[in-house]
Amino acid sequence: MSRPTNVCNPNVDAMPVDVLYHLGLSTESMDVKKAFGDVKFVIMGGSHKRMQKIAEIILKEFKVVLPVGTGLSNISWTTDRYVMYKVGPIISVSHGMGVPSISICLHEMAKLLHHAGATDVHFVRVGTCGGIGLKPGSVVITTSCMDCAFNDFFQLKVMGKVVKRPAELDEDFVHGLVETAKEMKLDFDVVVGKTMCADDFYEEQGRLDGAICDYTEKEKMAFLQKAYDLGVRNLEMESLGFAAFCQRLQIKAAVICATMVNRLESDQISTPVETMHAWQERPLAILMAYMKKVLNISESPLSC
Amino acid sequence: MSRPTNVCNPNVDAMPVDVLYHLGLSTESMDVKKAFGDVKFVIMGGSHKRMQKIAEIILKEFKVVLPVGTGLSNISWTTDRYVMYKVGPIISVSHGMGVPSISICLHEMAKLLHHAGATDVHFVRVGTCGGIGLKPGSVVITTSCMDCAFNDFFQLKVMGKVVKRPAELDEDFVHGLVETAKEMKLDFDVVVGKTMCADDFYEEQGRLDGAICDYTEKEKMAFLQKAYDLGVRNLEMESLGFAAFCQRLQIKAAVICATMVNRLESDQISTPVETMHAWQERPLAILMAYMKKVLNISESPLSC
Repeated sequence: MSRPTNVCNPNVDAMPVDVLYHLGLSTESMDVKKAFGDVKFVIMGGSHKRMQKIAEIILKEFKVVLPVGTGLSNISWTTDRYVMYKVGPIISVSHGMGVPSISICLHEMAKLLHHAGATDVHFVRVGTCGGIGLKPGSVVITTSCMDCAFNDFFQLKVMGKVVKRPAELDEDFVHGLVETAKEMKLDFDVVVGKTMCADDFYEEQGRLDGAICDYTEKEKMAFLQKAYDLGVRNLEMESLGFAAFCQRLQIKAAVICATMVNRLESDQISTPVETMHAWQERPLAILMAYMKKVLNISESPLSC
Repeated sequence: MSRPTNVCNPNVDAMPVDVLYHLGLSTESMDVKKAFGDVKFVIMGGSHKRMQKIAEIILKEFKVVLPVGTGLSNISWTTDRYVMYKVGPIISVSHGMGVPSISICLHEMAKLLHHAGATDVHFVRVGTCGGIGLKPGSVVITTSCMDCAFNDFFQLKVMGKVVKRPAELDEDFVHGLVETAKEMKLDFDVVVGKTMCADDFYEEQGRLDGAICDYTEKEKMAFLQKAYDLGVRNLEMESLGFAAFCQRLQIKAAVICATMVNRLESDQISTPVETMHAWQERPLAILMAYMKKVLNISESPLSC
């Protein structure tokens, strides 16, 4: 049985028009069922350029045939908050940096796919992160998330009061990605572990090189070691809000990130850009192999 | 006496090279003193395109003369996290959406200007927001910030523990903007008040049209009314982190935003784009008049 894309808000179905302001879309100005009803995967990542590039890679790898005389085009072109591309049943959308930024994208994407009647949708965040005790370039598949005070739940303030929500990724989806990675003959490490989600790149992550630093190197190392001992293998800035949102809406969700630095050895990201770009392909390669299985794609081209 | 741009981290001066990763700059690859030593104002706003447009407006309004055969160019072109433009002593930089996103920009901008030896620098956020009890298109100049649980301080997690920081804007700068606005014959309202800073556009701000909504319209109205009674006149998503960061570093800072909607009447932003663009010019007009006074600019052109 197919699983609908639910929203937890009865108001949404009662609205005559829904303006998805930050995606630059409105249910009035387009037929969202026709445009998005077939979506099965929403791939999210921070960078605009990267998400365009991912759409182009999928177009090629999945042998999607576009109508003659057409090319990929940014669906969210009327705004510059996010970019969004669609390649067959796969959306590639940017989410900016940090939980608040991805949160807006999540609300509007979920509403869009709800209006569209899309079923069995997976949300997946592919990104970059700092690793703890891992060789740079390793890939981390997240099981669950915690904040930088070691709380394994997401907190937000609703009607002036703090609300706590669990932030676990979907077991099946995580398992599927892990198994897919095992089947591939990869020349890099793929690690399964917890992800620590920070609201800031410098202080919350214990970096020594920010404009404010009120702690010593020894304290930093103790903080990272404590995280490691609790099962944390990487730090980034969106997973906690992403996981909590998807869990609440029962959307199958996963986070798969490439580590750009081993935080036990360095804070600064000084790896050459070309190397970092190559590392960024790694989570995508695993995800694409997984999507091909789920979408039953072998060698026959997808139509768009 | 001139006021240096300080950082609260002794490590920064000891680093042989500082890679400002998200700005796409490094102290090794350019002469930052020569390039940024003259900066007096850093204007920050969420949108990439908007900050480019602001740089172009300032170029024209301040009659800045660029060397023949040159035009404005994005200084952060190697990355797509932010865009940065420089027009004489004024920087226009985008910060994305939400406190975590602006926080990265703040850390790296402060370090850049510290390395550059820039003095007497003002940071100002110009943006859009939701108003409470104000006619849409009104401008709010912020005195201090609170979070969505009515806390009038900023919280972040450092070394696993919650740290609280005050989040007040600079009195002189706020006063200067208010007086400037009074001197101009403006056909819109300029209001001075507190700003509520949310970590999310939908739930934390009490919107009824998100993908998740666990409260009634009555509860929403009571929440907004409580905020109004405490002196809050607008809601946005960056001011709290911005104010706390600048206050800690003793950088003169202000927030000046145009309201796009009156939240006591509507949640959706359905104003025509052209109208919203016109409203966005309003905070900038006040800021430009203020900057002209501070920089002693009359009719003689600035050189770049």
